[in-house]
Order: sequence, then C-alpha cells, then structure tokens
Amino acid sequence: MILKFNEHLAQIKTYEAGKPIELVVREYGIEPKDIIKLASNENPYGSSPKVIKAVGDIVKNMSLYPDDSMLKLKNGLKKRFEVEGENIIIGSGSDQVIEFLIHAKANQNSTILMNSITFAMYEIYAKHIGAKVLRTASQKHNMGEFYELYKEHKPSIIFICTPNNPTGDALDASEIYDFLAKIDSDTLVVIDAAYIEYAAHKDAKKALYPKDLIAKFNNVIYLGTFSKAYGLGGMRVGYGISNGTIIKELTKLRPPFNITTLSLEAASEALNDEEFVAKSIGANFEQMSRYEDFAKNQKIDIIESYTNFITLMLDSSKNSTTISNELLKKGMIVRDLASYNTNAIRVTIGTHEQNSRFFELMSELI
Amino acid sequence: MILKFNEHLAQIKTYEAGKPIELVVREYGIEPKDIIKLASNENPYGSSPKVIKAVGDIVKNMSLYPDDSMLKLKNGLKKRFEVEGENIIIGSGSDQVIEFLIHAKANQNSTILMNSITFAMYEIYAKHIGAKVLRTASQKHNMGEFYELYKEHKPSIIFICTPNNPTGDALDASEIYDFLAKIDSDTLVVIDAAYIEYAAHKDAKKALYPKDLIAKFNNVIYLGTFSKAYGLGGMRVGYGISNGTIIKELTKLRPPFNITTLSLEAASEALNDEEFVAKSIGANFEQMSRYEDFAKNQKIDIIESYTNFITLMLDSSKNSTTISNELLKKGMIVRDLASYNTNAIRVTIGTHEQNSRFFELMSELI
Repeated sequence: MILKFNEHLAQIKTYEAGKPIELVVREYGIEPKDIIKLASNENPYGSSPKVIKAVGDIVKNMSLYPDDSMLKLKNGLKKRFEVEGENIIIGSGSDQVIEFLIHAKANQNSTILMNSITFAMYEIYAKHIGAKVLRTASQKHNMGEFYELYKEHKPSIIFICTPNNPTGDALDASEIYDFLAKIDSDTLVVIDAAYIEYAAHKDAKKALYPKDLIAKFNNVIYLGTFSKAYGLGGMRVGYGISNGTIIKELTKLRPPFNITTLSLEAASEALNDEEFVAKSIGANFEQMSRYEDFAKNQKIDIIESYTNFITLMLDSSKNSTTISNELLKKGMIVRDLASYNTNAIRVTIGTHEQNSRFFELMSELI
Repeated sequence: MILKFNEHLAQIKTYEAGKPIELVVREYGIEPKDIIKLASNENPYGSSPKVIKAVGDIVKNMSLYPDDSMLKLKNGLKKRFEVEGENIIIGSGSDQVIEFLIHAKANQNSTILMNSITFAMYEIYAKHIGAKVLRTASQKHNMGEFYELYKEHKPSIIFICTPNNPTGDALDASEIYDFLAKIDSDTLVVIDAAYIEYAAHKDAKKALYPKDLIAKFNNVIYLGTFSKAYGLGGMRVGYGISNGTIIKELTKLRPPFNITTLSLEAASEALNDEEFVAKSIGANFEQMSRYEDFAKNQKIDIIESYTNFITLMLDSSKNSTTISNELLKKGMIVRDLASYNTNAIRVTIGTHEQNSRFFELMSELI
C-alpha cells in the first residue's frame, strides 16, 4: 500500500514566479550586477530609507517572535484607512488572506468566479480545496459578464482584481459599486487592490476606499499589500479590510506569527513614509510614458496601465516566449504571459536606466 | 441573507501564543526593560552574530522577492542532513509544513492521532479542515497506546512530538523506529523534532537522523525549525524532510514566497554557525540544572526536560493561572498550561540573570 493524498491535489499547478536573479546567474552565468529583473513588479526604488533604518535597528531581535496582536501595524492601518482594528486581518502577503478566505468560505462543492486573465493565485488556492473555477471570456473585467455568470452559477466567491494583474487595466469605482449592489449577501466579493495606489494617482475615478465599501456592503473584502508601492515585496505583508464578522471568521484560520518580527516593523514604519510611496508612484508614471512612446514607435499594442507594469501585446509575427527567452539570455528578466494563453510580455516599469536598457534590447529583437 | 462560512469553522479555537512583551507593557504599564519573557521558548542568547551581520547587510533588499527556489537554504540543509533537495520543503515555521501536510493528506472524514498533551497547532490545523482529532490518555508519549488507537481507528496522520511541547520529555529513537515498523504505509507519521537539537545533546539515544528515517520508511516526515536552538524565532523558517514523492505533493500547497527575503538569508547563514547553536545548548543545560535544584528545594515536581524549557507541575494547593498572573504583574511572562488542562507552568530556560529573577519571584509566590 502506498501513501495516498487528497485527490484534488492532482489538479494543482504550482505558481510560476518571476525568475529570480539567482536563477539567471545559475542558468546563464551572467553576473548579478548585469541582470535587470523587470518581472515581479517590485518597487525599483527599493524601500523607504526610514524603513531600512528602522529594520536595521532591530535585526538583533530576530530570535524573538513578533507581537501576534500586531498592534503597531494595525494602528497604522486603522489611521491610514479610517477603520477599526476589528476590520483588519494581516497576511503573509495579501496572498495569504486569499488563502484564508477561500478556506473559510468555499469547499469542493463551491464555484469561484474570476476574470479570464487575472492573478494566478486565485485559481491555485481554489484548487487547494478542490473548488470549481469559473472565468469570464473578456480580457478586461466586464461587470455585465460577471453578473450573468453570477446569476447562473451563484458562486460562493467572486474575485475582482483592480487594477488587474497581469494586464494593468482598472475598473472605475462606480462600476464596482453598481455590481456589488446586485450581488446577494451570501456571495463574498473580493476586491484585490494590490496596485490601487498607482491607479488612484493616475485617475481618481479608479480610487477605492475600503471604509466606504464595507460601510455599504457586508459581503465585501478589500485586499491591499506592502509589496508594491510600499516597496516591501520581500517582506511578505498584506492585509484584508472587511466587516468585523468576516474578519473574525478569517482570523480563525490565521496561524500565529504569520509575519516575521522584521516584517511587522517594516510595514508599520512604511506607513509613516507616504512621501516615499508618492515619489515612487510619480516616477513610475514618468517612466511609463517612455514605454508608451516606445510601443507607439515600434507599433506594439499596449494595454493602458494603472499599475507599475505594462503589458505589451505581440502580434502573430512575434512569440512572447521566444522574446522573453532572448531577453533572459541578455540578463533582462520580464514576464512571458504565454502561461495565461496570451501572446504578450509583462514588463515592470523600472528605473530610467533599467527601462533604457529594455528599450535597447527589445529594439534589437523585434 | 447573510454570509455563511464553512460549518467546521465554528469548532476552531485560535492558538494562545505566549504573551508578547508589547502586551504586558500595555496591560500593566511595565517598562519593556523590566519585562522578562520566558514564555515562547525563544533562544535567550539571541541570534548568531554572523547571522545578525549577514541580515543587516541585505536589509536594503527588502523590496525584492526572495529566490523562490530557496537554493541557498536548501543547499545548507542538504549538507546538514545529508539528503537531497527533493527531500526538503521549507515552511514559514515548521507550523506551515504541518498545515501543508494536513491539507494534503487529511479531510473532513479523516482521523488525526496525537498525544494527550502536545503542540496545539496540530489540532488547530486539523480543525481547519474539519478532521477528527484523537488523543492518547497518557501524559507522555506511550507508543503502545498510540499503536492500539492506530489499529482501532486507522488515522490518516499520526503526530509524534519529540521532545514533546509543552512537557519537555522525549522518546528514544528506538521507540520511534519500533513504532514506525508496525504502521501501514498509507498513514503519514509526522515526527516533530522542533527541539531535537537540545535532546540530542543531552542524550544521544534521543537523537534522530532524518536521512535514516526516510531511507527506512516511506510514510514519515521529519520536521525541524530555526526558531529554537538556531535563534530565529522571529524569522519564521522551518522545514520538512521526507521522501521525494511526499515532498512533491506538499510542495503543491506551498504558496510562492512563503518566507521573507531576510528570513531566507538568516536561516541559510545560521547553518554556517553551528558553534553558536552548540554554545546556546550548552548554556541551556547549565541553567536547567538550576531549575532542577530550585524545584527540588521548593518541592515542586518537574518533568525531566530535553528542551530549552521546563514544566513545573503544581500540586493542588497551587493554581497555575493564579501564579502565572502574579508573575505577569511583576513583569515575568511564563506559560500557564491550564489551557492544556494541566495545573502546571512552562518556563523557558533563560539567561543566568533571567532565571535568577524567576527563582526570586517564584519563591515569593509559593
């Protein structure tokens, strides 16, 4: 007899992360200093100097478990979002909050509705419990289509990702409010706003305020992260904001000490340097205009982006996998969207210098 | 209609973590410098200076996601345990590996067998999926009793915690091997060895070698952690070692980037300073002998401990909750085992000075 596992595990594909610099060093023998990674939408301006200082000061505390009540971080988030502590749950990245809510709300008899192309972890976590994944057909979030599928299938969870990853487009807040008004309370609607700070800067109509969302709807959870605009991708801190009842249930699934002592300090301190965030976002859109110009000159279609990345749609004369691999050999890591059945590459908006190098290499390839 | 959650969530109790220093500061207004925490079995000698240096050097990389292949850490563990990379899975603490294996192997129809008193997270994770928890009656691991319950109930998972937390006693390796030889391959046996470095130092008969375990049995997984002897409780890094087939299934449930960039560096570097670990363990047992003397003088029963903590069994004239609370008011945090239905307190072996203070305060109370 052999050890058998739960049957639905056979359906799980693992997440394809952006290739780390370490891997390119190993595979192609390129020196780390010659590698540019524009694949994981990290903040190219690093972390706030204030955060670096604060974390540096407590490195000696690595032996101590974090304050599991996360008081300092929750106080920061309460102030930032004008909500109460009972409305907040902290995850090891917002990924982990997605895991909590799928495990709390769905099971193998559930249907989970999401956009045709969207953040891969929704499906991966859904498959962890054997739930059925239902997708729209449109590339962009089409709320009419979402509503038709909702009516027909009564999903237990609906994921709305705005701005959407990996395409970069964003919904107007009004579209989300109109949609939520039509959804029954027993369907949990997840608004994944990992990149919303960028969208809100570019167009106020895209901004979302969790305080208003949860005041109006008792079946919505808003997800945010410190991994993008806040420059802490490596520290794994995200959060969910929802009504107290939902947070209480999700908290039952939160393991103790789910973020590190240093991560707790980093995220708490990051909320005290909004200037760093604003500067990063400003620089991001300055640099993005160079990508828009580049795409126009090279006759490459782009999806208008409200994030810190841009998706270049390739025509049938080009192959996203070939191009990604050619770039990789030259030390430039981007994200091939072939695994999303899309002939496109997603490029993180880097620093001026990194972007110039991308334009240079890409020009040679197309 | 209201939002309904999976029914088994109603059964979940949350983990009671050792009270963090921050909480005592808030509740009793005691200055942090006057608080001694001997409640979470952290290493009282902190982290290796080499690790502190290495992590300090990369604090500026907090914006970057970790190498999700975890090559550097896996190489260290391969060398340390003489196993292959395919035999290793890394978790955010060994807790997370427990979560993976319960989700992979068990479901709401499963039974999970564990000791009467043992690490609380086994039951909590079991309840996350609605599995049935079955416990032995004996306080110490009694492998005869485990076997009788195994035969009767055919559990899908058996947890053996050696040394056991929160009691500190440990099995001989031979008892574990004899037990494993009688267990069918479709039951997964988990050997939680979080404190084994301490036990192996005190008595070689308690030592376990995952390489040998997995060579001999195809249904066993060995769990280790960097949180105790390696002095990295706040960094959340643990690991599982098992055969490649089991690790492959568990890896399907591992979220990408499940440990932080700084944690990856800390754990990798910690494996390069075994001298720090050896010194910490040596000092631990020197200090433990003071607890043994104290208990003898005060006529308090103790459980012989193979760990970095000691459990003081109180007689019926004393109440563990009252004593814990009195200690807390004086800034001394220990673990009350009342929540394990045991009239006892668990005290982490601290530094010489911390322990002296414990003896002083405890003498006043009993």
